[in-house]
Amino acid sequence: MLSRFGNARDALAALPSLSLRAGGKQLRPPDDVEDEIEQVRRYGAKIICACEASFPSALKQLSPPPPLLTIRGDPDHFRERCVAIVGARQASAVGRKLARDIAADLSDAGFKIVSGLARGIDGEAHAASLDGGTIAVLGGGIDHIYPPQHQRLFAEIAAKGVLVSESPFGHRATARDFPRRNRIITGLAEGVIVIEAAERSGSLISARTALEQNREVMAVPGSPLEPRSAGSNRLLRQGATLIRNAEDVIEALSISPTRALEAPSPPIFHADDNATDEIPKTQIQAVHAALSPTPILLDELARTAGISLPRCAVILVELELAGIAVTYPGGLAALALEPQP
Amino acid sequence: MLSRFGNARDALAALPSLSLRAGGKQLRPPDDVEDEIEQVRRYGAKIICACEASFPSALKQLSPPPPLLTIRGDPDHFRERCVAIVGARQASAVGRKLARDIAADLSDAGFKIVSGLARGIDGEAHAASLDGGTIAVLGGGIDHIYPPQHQRLFAEIAAKGVLVSESPFGHRATARDFPRRNRIITGLAEGVIVIEAAERSGSLISARTALEQNREVMAVPGSPLEPRSAGSNRLLRQGATLIRNAEDVIEALSISPTRALEAPSPPIFHADDNATDEIPKTQIQAVHAALSPTPILLDELARTAGISLPRCAVILVELELAGIAVTYPGGLAALALEPQP
Repeated sequence: MLSRFGNARDALAALPSLSLRAGGKQLRPPDDVEDEIEQVRRYGAKIICACEASFPSALKQLSPPPPLLTIRGDPDHFRERCVAIVGARQASAVGRKLARDIAADLSDAGFKIVSGLARGIDGEAHAASLDGGTIAVLGGGIDHIYPPQHQRLFAEIAAKGVLVSESPFGHRATARDFPRRNRIITGLAEGVIVIEAAERSGSLISARTALEQNREVMAVPGSPLEPRSAGSNRLLRQGATLIRNAEDVIEALSISPTRALEAPSPPIFHADDNATDEIPKTQIQAVHAALSPTPILLDELARTAGISLPRCAVILVELELAGIAVTYPGGLAALALEPQP
Repeated sequence: MLSRFGNARDALAALPSLSLRAGGKQLRPPDDVEDEIEQVRRYGAKIICACEASFPSALKQLSPPPPLLTIRGDPDHFRERCVAIVGARQASAVGRKLARDIAADLSDAGFKIVSGLARGIDGEAHAASLDGGTIAVLGGGIDHIYPPQHQRLFAEIAAKGVLVSESPFGHRATARDFPRRNRIITGLAEGVIVIEAAERSGSLISARTALEQNREVMAVPGSPLEPRSAGSNRLLRQGATLIRNAEDVIEALSISPTRALEAPSPPIFHADDNATDEIPKTQIQAVHAALSPTPILLDELARTAGISLPRCAVILVELELAGIAVTYPGGLAALALEPQP
């Protein structure tokens, strides 16, 4: 946008009409956004942007990184080595004890524990690592305490650790917010430990996300007669590292290199001069029509749409702003499965 | 021996003096041996030799194969695909159920279950696979029922399956017989399944033996809080295949090729003519002194002992007969850790 419009003011001014022209929804007016920033500030939290130094460097390497995070607590925790712990909400006593033991020992060893503040494994992992500084990623807004029974834990994490949300202030979490939250949980960490996950559990989706993010996937084994271990055992059969305690985790992470400090990949779009011309609506529609949910290389897309590659790239910026397209590293683009908020 | 003495009669006649000269113990007189063969026959069992067609082909590839086995029951079971199941004697209810389920399902799928007739996992595996034909390998003689509470199971296996022993008739098993028994259990099978094994359990030694025998090593996972799963989980971390049920076992065995039907490796000793000379006792002592518990190549050994390689090979035959040396494939020899029976 900066390349195309020359300065931030003109780029911002052009945003609403670009989004509408590409078929996206009406953008929130700037006053509205400024109100939210002020609300967040008064609540004792703050919004940080992916371009800021305090933004977690591990998240900067995600493709794409979350553009904004709301955080409450001490962002210095993001600078330490982080391990995610996830698992069943309806955890067994054995699973809960394992979560506590592993989280406490990793915390003593200097790791920050990242989890999702859910009941069961998440709550145990946070509670056992409070003093070392734990990181809780919320599905709802930074002010939305869920589940209600974790109210006290929520306050303790705000005081000693850090709360993180990618959702707007005041947003109440629904089921569709959790995949996005899970992406932040695993994205913040060098690796994820799955403790008790049934077949078709959300923790298995987290494990897959972690794999895509090039994070270490670890699982605690359980008896084949325990349904809450079915997902963990499946992960182990698929190649996850079997861990029994914190020592095993530290060993697994020392073998696989720390991946959190790599530089983010450079942006794939470089608009050129001729791309600043007014873009005909028919060309935008042609690119839109050429997209499918399966990612495709940009030059293939441009050829299908019958336009130049630089022009196609600029159109994709607009379609992505409108939540219609998504782009991936390696020069790939696809149709967004559902319009993004 | 046949190469050296030209015929079986002379070789047999020379055995007692060869053994004594190399420092071994007095051999049993032939009448004594014939009495045992007759006792075994009257008991309803029989002794088979590694050179016979009915000898299990999977055991023929071991280095060295057990020279003799006493068997009772139907030796045709050895011709089928075999899987060993081993585990804790003090098994949990969960471990016992898994042993039953896996053994029964593998038996239904046409596999013969091999185990050691011990309490716990062994007994469950045999009992659940009786109708398909199960193979029990005993630590004591073929007539020695141990543990006593398995008397009925013992009789049922004799009727429907097959009992196997490498020990002499009438021998009561002691702790030192079990490693030898375990070698037969895993040697008979394409792979071994470990169900519940504590740290430092005998099942872990079986797993290591199986690995050395090039058999598939499989283990059922369990909670890190269950001490009876500590050994199984350790095996899984070391690369054993995680199995949850019979289906997983069949998959694991279909991926790794059936190894049981390979030809035995050829003998490594080929005595030549000049080796039939009388061997001076000083040369035998020189080879004995040059041996250590660490296997060494024969040409290195011959050089250290200051004698020719063919002469060294003949001396090793005598030392091995006397239970002083052991030889390995690849032309290696070492000192036996304790004189063999």
